[in-house]
Amino acid sequence: MANLRYGVIGTGGLGGYYGGRLAYSGQDVHFLLNSDYEYVRMNGLRIDSVNGDFRLDQVSAYQATTDMPGCDVLLVCLKTTHNHLLPAMLPPVVHPGSVVIMIQNGLGIEEELDHRMPHLNIAGGLAFIGAGKKGPGHITHLDLGSLVIGGYNLKTIKILQQVCDDFQGAGVPCSISENLDASRWQKLVWNVPFNGMSVVLNTTTDQIVSNPSTRQLALEMMLEVIHAANHCGVPMKEGLAFRMMEMTDGMVPYAPSMKLDYDFNRPMEIDAIYTRPAQKAAQAGFEMKAVAMLEKQLRFIEARQKLNAKTTGFKE
Amino acid sequence: MANLRYGVIGTGGLGGYYGGRLAYSGQDVHFLLNSDYEYVRMNGLRIDSVNGDFRLDQVSAYQATTDMPGCDVLLVCLKTTHNHLLPAMLPPVVHPGSVVIMIQNGLGIEEELDHRMPHLNIAGGLAFIGAGKKGPGHITHLDLGSLVIGGYNLKTIKILQQVCDDFQGAGVPCSISENLDASRWQKLVWNVPFNGMSVVLNTTTDQIVSNPSTRQLALEMMLEVIHAANHCGVPMKEGLAFRMMEMTDGMVPYAPSMKLDYDFNRPMEIDAIYTRPAQKAAQAGFEMKAVAMLEKQLRFIEARQKLNAKTTGFKE
Repeated sequence: MANLRYGVIGTGGLGGYYGGRLAYSGQDVHFLLNSDYEYVRMNGLRIDSVNGDFRLDQVSAYQATTDMPGCDVLLVCLKTTHNHLLPAMLPPVVHPGSVVIMIQNGLGIEEELDHRMPHLNIAGGLAFIGAGKKGPGHITHLDLGSLVIGGYNLKTIKILQQVCDDFQGAGVPCSISENLDASRWQKLVWNVPFNGMSVVLNTTTDQIVSNPSTRQLALEMMLEVIHAANHCGVPMKEGLAFRMMEMTDGMVPYAPSMKLDYDFNRPMEIDAIYTRPAQKAAQAGFEMKAVAMLEKQLRFIEARQKLNAKTTGFKE
Repeated sequence: MANLRYGVIGTGGLGGYYGGRLAYSGQDVHFLLNSDYEYVRMNGLRIDSVNGDFRLDQVSAYQATTDMPGCDVLLVCLKTTHNHLLPAMLPPVVHPGSVVIMIQNGLGIEEELDHRMPHLNIAGGLAFIGAGKKGPGHITHLDLGSLVIGGYNLKTIKILQQVCDDFQGAGVPCSISENLDASRWQKLVWNVPFNGMSVVLNTTTDQIVSNPSTRQLALEMMLEVIHAANHCGVPMKEGLAFRMMEMTDGMVPYAPSMKLDYDFNRPMEIDAIYTRPAQKAAQAGFEMKAVAMLEKQLRFIEARQKLNAKTTGFKE
């Protein structure tokens, strides 16, 4: 089968790491950048990884999708808070056979894109990774690193299988989910307690799990997400919460993505991680009480963040 | 009827204001002080009040209850976190006819004292006031100021009626509650949302009520307290929550006592305001979910506060 041409839409920690791995393994990868465009065009990408550092001296870097070639696979690694830009960004880089893979946290991601852009082949992905941008063109990969991808409205997942093989060949553990919605709910089991609480309590995962009160609260919220998923027709057992808690015990002290977003004055993904899951659960007749409370606390913090925007440089 | 001799146990914002009013009106008032003892003995008390400032140049100040004369009425204005000291502090100042009035927030206050010190005549009080200590012997009274007192195990409330008259004569609106437990629950309707949220979200009452998310959250928590009270046999209507919200709209921007305690590195009254009400409700078959979640967040913050004790001077 012919090689796939990859486009990375959003070259931050996630896009830089996964796109960087693919490019380093010899795949044809084109990176869309924003503020780092000039720097990366001149200096390439540097990835410091727990699995070994590497550099890409020559990077196909772009400032706008209108400059990019058509791609077979688009890895959307933007924050969900930027998804409203996709109807303007994607058309120049997609052809009728392209697949857009939304590598983002939260729920209803593909549904929303499908609503905004009918006729698109859409898939989704979940990254189990601790990675971030340390400086211009400088990515750090701190922990974990696997990827789960799954189709949303694809007629065949043949192309996803090739994507999966390409990632495996690039040293990224990748698997295909038969049920993308279930995978999204599963990841929420972790994201819901740890993202929000790290912001509200100004802390990191290790502190949350080592304090008995917040450990119990995290567990209760995990169980609430599992019960919500069950109400939404996604089978999931309570044991997952306990396994994820153990996994977190073994993780390096970690600031979840929402905490980093807050600390760096970027918008938080409250809609995708809190509002939409709570709405879906409510539609299925289940009230996510703890999640709704955490969401309201986050909305308060978000409002204060926006109010301080002028003086601190909030990045919308 | 003979004049009552008053003892103020704990001369902070509350004890300084209410005791100060009584003394200024000519009552015989004896103040127990801690760190401010020397200063107040030399310089007296200064009270800056929204209703007019006043000074007490001569104050009967004491460093220990063993130095105090026996008193007919003990106004306990300590933080609940210091109540374990009362069995050692009270005996020298009480006689068989003395009444101890616990002017504190929270639930189970009198019950706990009765358990620790049987044979004591116990009453309780609730202060609806914004007051604090500005400096040594310097009290500020910012808003409101009324007092509700009620008997716990008294054979007659005759002495409470005299106390009430004395307060009225001193310019303090005072009334007697027929049901102290109900009065305590009523005050919790306000204290539960505003104390904890101001700490967790590092904010003040005006910000909480003006943001739509936290306003709704505060209302939900108020209703949760009302439902808990109902389950505990205390009749209370939901309308109280809406009236208290309106009252808060009209208040000056205000840092509740728990926020001040946190800011000044003093222990927070989590037990009295959160843990005990949740326990009482649970015993009555009602789960206070939002309150329990806020409690856990506060316990996390409390643990961090204690951990930082050595460097910042946490006052146990």
